[in-house]
Amino acid sequence: MKNLLLCLTAGLLLFSSLNAQQRARDLDIKIGVIPTGKKNAITDVAGVKVGHTTLVKGDSVRTGVTAILPHGGNIFQQKVPAAVYVGNGFGKLAGTTQVEELGNIETPIILTNTLDVATGMNAVIQYSLGLEGNEEVHSVNAVVGETNDGYLNDIRGQHVQIPDVISAIEKAAEDNTEEGNIGAGTGTVAFGFKGGIGTSSRKLPESLGGYTIGVMVQSNFGGNLQIDGAPIGEELGRYPFNDKLMQSADGSCMIVVATNAPLDSRNLKRLAKRAFMGLAKTGGIASNGSGDYVIAFSTAEENRIPYEIKSEILETKNVPNRLMSPIFMAAIEATEEAILNSLFMAETSTGFQGHTIKAIPMEKVLPVLRKYQVIPE
Amino acid sequence: MKNLLLCLTAGLLLFSSLNAQQRARDLDIKIGVIPTGKKNAITDVAGVKVGHTTLVKGDSVRTGVTAILPHGGNIFQQKVPAAVYVGNGFGKLAGTTQVEELGNIETPIILTNTLDVATGMNAVIQYSLGLEGNEEVHSVNAVVGETNDGYLNDIRGQHVQIPDVISAIEKAAEDNTEEGNIGAGTGTVAFGFKGGIGTSSRKLPESLGGYTIGVMVQSNFGGNLQIDGAPIGEELGRYPFNDKLMQSADGSCMIVVATNAPLDSRNLKRLAKRAFMGLAKTGGIASNGSGDYVIAFSTAEENRIPYEIKSEILETKNVPNRLMSPIFMAAIEATEEAILNSLFMAETSTGFQGHTIKAIPMEKVLPVLRKYQVIPE
Amino acid sequence: MKNLLLCLTAGLLLFSSLNAQQRARDLDIKIGVIPTGKKNAITDVAGVKVGHTTLVKGDSVRTGVTAILPHGGNIFQQKVPAAVYVGNGFGKLAGTTQVEELGNIETPIILTNTLDVATGMNAVIQYSLGLEGNEEVHSVNAVVGETNDGYLNDIRGQHVQIPDVISAIEKAAEDNTEEGNIGAGTGTVAFGFKGGIGTSSRKLPESLGGYTIGVMVQSNFGGNLQIDGAPIGEELGRYPFNDKLMQSADGSCMIVVATNAPLDSRNLKRLAKRAFMGLAKTGGIASNGSGDYVIAFSTAEENRIPYEIKSEILETKNVPNRLMSPIFMAAIEATEEAILNSLFMAETSTGFQGHTIKAIPMEKVLPVLRKYQVIPE
Amino acid sequence: MKNLLLCLTAGLLLFSSLNAQQRARDLDIKIGVIPTGKKNAITDVAGVKVGHTTLVKGDSVRTGVTAILPHGGNIFQQKVPAAVYVGNGFGKLAGTTQVEELGNIETPIILTNTLDVATGMNAVIQYSLGLEGNEEVHSVNAVVGETNDGYLNDIRGQHVQIPDVISAIEKAAEDNTEEGNIGAGTGTVAFGFKGGIGTSSRKLPESLGGYTIGVMVQSNFGGNLQIDGAPIGEELGRYPFNDKLMQSADGSCMIVVATNAPLDSRNLKRLAKRAFMGLAKTGGIASNGSGDYVIAFSTAEENRIPYEIKSEILETKNVPNRLMSPIFMAAIEATEEAILNSLFMAETSTGFQGHTIKAIPMEKVLPVLRKYQVIPE
Repeated sequence: MKNLLLCLTAGLLLFSSLNAQQRARDLDIKIGVIPTGKKNAITDVAGVKVGHTTLVKGDSVRTGVTAILPHGGNIFQQKVPAAVYVGNGFGKLAGTTQVEELGNIETPIILTNTLDVATGMNAVIQYSLGLEGNEEVHSVNAVVGETNDGYLNDIRGQHVQIPDVISAIEKAAEDNTEEGNIGAGTGTVAFGFKGGIGTSSRKLPESLGGYTIGVMVQSNFGGNLQIDGAPIGEELGRYPFNDKLMQSADGSCMIVVATNAPLDSRNLKRLAKRAFMGLAKTGGIASNGSGDYVIAFSTAEENRIPYEIKSEILETKNVPNRLMSPIFMAAIEATEEAILNSLFMAETSTGFQGHTIKAIPMEKVLPVLRKYQVIPE
Repeated sequence: MKNLLLCLTAGLLLFSSLNAQQRARDLDIKIGVIPTGKKNAITDVAGVKVGHTTLVKGDSVRTGVTAILPHGGNIFQQKVPAAVYVGNGFGKLAGTTQVEELGNIETPIILTNTLDVATGMNAVIQYSLGLEGNEEVHSVNAVVGETNDGYLNDIRGQHVQIPDVISAIEKAAEDNTEEGNIGAGTGTVAFGFKGGIGTSSRKLPESLGGYTIGVMVQSNFGGNLQIDGAPIGEELGRYPFNDKLMQSADGSCMIVVATNAPLDSRNLKRLAKRAFMGLAKTGGIASNGSGDYVIAFSTAEENRIPYEIKSEILETKNVPNRLMSPIFMAAIEATEEAILNSLFMAETSTGFQGHTIKAIPMEKVLPVLRKYQVIPE
Repeated sequence: MKNLLLCLTAGLLLFSSLNAQQRARDLDIKIGVIPTGKKNAITDVAGVKVGHTTLVKGDSVRTGVTAILPHGGNIFQQKVPAAVYVGNGFGKLAGTTQVEELGNIETPIILTNTLDVATGMNAVIQYSLGLEGNEEVHSVNAVVGETNDGYLNDIRGQHVQIPDVISAIEKAAEDNTEEGNIGAGTGTVAFGFKGGIGTSSRKLPESLGGYTIGVMVQSNFGGNLQIDGAPIGEELGRYPFNDKLMQSADGSCMIVVATNAPLDSRNLKRLAKRAFMGLAKTGGIASNGSGDYVIAFSTAEENRIPYEIKSEILETKNVPNRLMSPIFMAAIEATEEAILNSLFMAETSTGFQGHTIKAIPMEKVLPVLRKYQVIPE
Repeated sequence: MKNLLLCLTAGLLLFSSLNAQQRARDLDIKIGVIPTGKKNAITDVAGVKVGHTTLVKGDSVRTGVTAILPHGGNIFQQKVPAAVYVGNGFGKLAGTTQVEELGNIETPIILTNTLDVATGMNAVIQYSLGLEGNEEVHSVNAVVGETNDGYLNDIRGQHVQIPDVISAIEKAAEDNTEEGNIGAGTGTVAFGFKGGIGTSSRKLPESLGGYTIGVMVQSNFGGNLQIDGAPIGEELGRYPFNDKLMQSADGSCMIVVATNAPLDSRNLKRLAKRAFMGLAKTGGIASNGSGDYVIAFSTAEENRIPYEIKSEILETKNVPNRLMSPIFMAAIEATEEAILNSLFMAETSTGFQGHTIKAIPMEKVLPVLRKYQVIPE
């Protein structure tokens, strides 16, 4: 009996190692119609850097930090136009009112767990105060989001430390494409399976502007999972309220959208709203307990907002309203795919109090995807 | 050759008459997992009344009016808690700021075409002023939404008249389940096919509150059509920007959500936001030119807001935040299905300047739905 | 006795004709510290045009229309950046969601009475459709505000007609400085006195940008009146809830802010918010029944938004956040003064059902202003 | 000559010590017309507790923490209806999106300096996790506001520690009426003078509901100071842009409004908006650099929101919209007075880098107040 179990486990692990690490595209799942960027990642947007600190310690620490940098310079001195959309505000995202008021972001964006947002803020503040040129700065608007990883992680222990956050910022690189159980996605759960970090991008044809739109998600939410339209939740018998487990749809999703399209904060807010439509397509329901937020920013160099204004007028070049629709559609597609990637790239994890969350069982999912013609038979 | 064409046409017409008038459920398309109400219509919410005035005159008038009444009494005297969510505000929905400020609706909700919103308002005002008991009223917040039917309809002619609106209100009935090219949906276009009025409902099991959630849509928008996940837009080669026709995704969608769940305006706003997630699942992208709005109201009698406050305290009974998620999910499902019904129940229409918009070609759609296992083979 | 009354009446009339027609500045009341523009009117902002239609008919019609044009051209073809702030949304201002979404205004701004907003919209639509170059337009976002003049005016009679609105638009002139019982201010009441149209402006010194900020109000609201800080309401024993007349503070205020400062819609929204601070300084309380709105727009030619986008990028030149504060202060000052002007320039009026509202009694106010050193003794 | 100066200085100090510590009412300044509560403090609202930690260390630490508790129990388990209004969002107030989404507050409200918000959050989290009954809690929405005391305080040193925050919470008492250079007001500056903590309240007559409205402010903002209408800024030659010092109007104001009126979150948001009108009356301009926020909550016991919902319906009793206006007016009056108290009760302070900010010079202010009849001659 024990041997059988071992065999089964081995088989699962084998299976897992063969399949669980494939992205949606590797599985032939194609979301939407717009081509992806080269890496199919948020880092396809030139200049955007991503770094992760993964904290897996002992039996109970399964958490981490993800840093997304709009550019490689001193962000406080060269702010970027930005906006936030609140899908469902049961969350602790820091920095929202200033982003809304001033229309920009002045720090790296940090994602972590719910109870370590303050540590993230303190780290961002210390990082920003310490940058060359910021010696006189005494106000920093840290943008720090979170989802709750308290099932797998000893979240009440507040295990993230300031150096963990600084490290994620410093490690951030333009070629980063990591996904799954890393950084802020280390301990998250989505649709009852292991969630995590996922990313995707779209590159519009030149006739539609040629812009790149990149998305990164920290998936930790629930709903009635659909993969490119296929009803995975129903086929697997796992969807909210099926067994009256109200909590099953709770959780949250942080979504970060980057683009090199020159957009002002108003159009970035509209763009952020579209990303949430991508979440809807995965079957998310933005349950009462969700902290669902989208942060969108533009990297367009001509629209940077210098801390020290040298002229009395800021000249900006923006995409007009009329040409926004393809950019909107790109954000919807990339968000849906980034969420799928976060599921596909995550691995089974055991943590706090012995809780285990399994990776999405590809051995069950692939046949369903074939049945529904999402992937070839 | 000509005969063949005639035959083909006849065949199509025959086909059309056999199929185009079937609702999603009749075609075995089942959206989501929550059971529908008895009529699978917004009028499943007890007391809600719907009426339409359809204006089809000569070659060019293809428009109309749809009235949705939260209850059969004097709505001004017995207001209902309500909220509005703006998906994309390129539209002329009247009455939003007062609904937001006071948290209620005091008139029938009217849907019509873009350039006849003012006529709708005047009609609602005259209707309200004329009701018994309203003799001293001198302020009426008309809630009038619209989509632009200017392709099939001579919209610049402003053909809706006040009696058309009054008539829709007066005809409103609790058993109304009409869909397709009627009322405000007479001249609308969705996903490049004929759109119109659609409706659907969900009835939660008693363990989840037992509430009914009903949705009515006036569909006039674009995107990359998906039917219960199946990629119809892609399979038919019709999706935005495919041929660089920027406009193809434009248009709008008015969504009205009714529920007998006792919800305050805050939770109704959250509910309205979820309805928009249902639109996302049909492939809508909320393009720049869309006027996408959701109006949500609660019919719960215990929460009516009397115009003449008799006591100094309003006692209300509300669903707590924690129990909202199933209601959210019901709104998502019913909205997706209502939009599909609006497509399936619409018929080919020829109007202004000889423009023709065809009903969704079921002869092409059904095979795709079978291929993707949305319906049985 | 009767003779005495006649004499008193004559005396009051005389007094009235000597004083009631003076603006705040004429009375030596100086609001704030920033210099006014030349006319101390919204028309100090170059290109802005104002026109009024005053409807005084028989015993009962005391209403009208005010049109404010951001520039003299085809506004639909050359939209202006704009924003709306809702102080208290118990009102029917049409067009808000599109202004918010797209960040611009595409029509003249119309002010009228509560029940004639729809007529205002229809007029704006017909005006816009009829302009040369708009032959293909089939969507117009009319911005029409209102206050309720139902005490002096037979508002239920809906006496404003489309030609009245068109006339106000066509009469609009750059040198218009009319105030008091004209246009949309014909029948309004403020602080229990006759209200109406008022205007004021500020011109910043070159060192602070040199911009002009102009404000026009339609005053119809209540509160505890203060004139440049002097407690008129208290000294005259007229303030809300003094005699438990709850309604006494109700009513509304429409505020329109124009500036030649090149501001984007985000900073225009911030500017609009400041105008409401000027209202606060007059003692307004934004009572439950108020429809208090601020519409702000920028006339800067370099930021016009052409209907037909010719390039793929809109180049704009905007005042940076950091230089906004003087512009904010100017809007606060000009709004306070415009409201005072609306009171001072209004005349006693008798209308519907014989109701009379007296002009603010300068014979009582001036001594109080002297006592409180607002004006020299 | 030197002796004379010494005498003058001594005289000023003497004068200062006699006067600077008097509240507005002690000086015969009466803001508005509604009677104050017994203590004329936020703690007049039954159950509300306030505590301060004042950090004055060496030459450079001039900061602190203020805690406001809606009630004396476990706030997480017994949440209170709440709302936030953003006057100008150049600030770091934590917790806003969840308050907006769920309509409640679940922790003490903490005020501190800009760069110690994160410490405040961590303290609130630890405090909340540690309360009896919260053993299973793993999500806490800390509401922590701030203003920037970086002129008098070594703000970059981040001197607030978690125990400082816990201490403010634990010291919080229902009889607290402290004002001036205490707690979060230790190092703040308002209108160029020493600002700080101020409080005031209003008690409506029974005929208007009998409710108590209490306000506490942390004043750190600028503008053109008016005291009960008297133009102090102008008379003292100190107002923004007078000398082109753009920064002089910057800074921020945190405003907390408590009431025992049973209000839902929608009406609390409206109430919060009115408090900002009180700030306007002091001459504040909500400059670009201001972080101006109002947090409003209701202590009404019947409307508490239990963490563990025991029934499927929450019964609430709310003031209807129609009876809100007197409550609005009370909030305006109490906010204006609380700000004045914060100025009057603050004392000259010297801190970081030897910077000195003087208390408002009553020896100059009182004559102006007499001149303008604010106080008797």
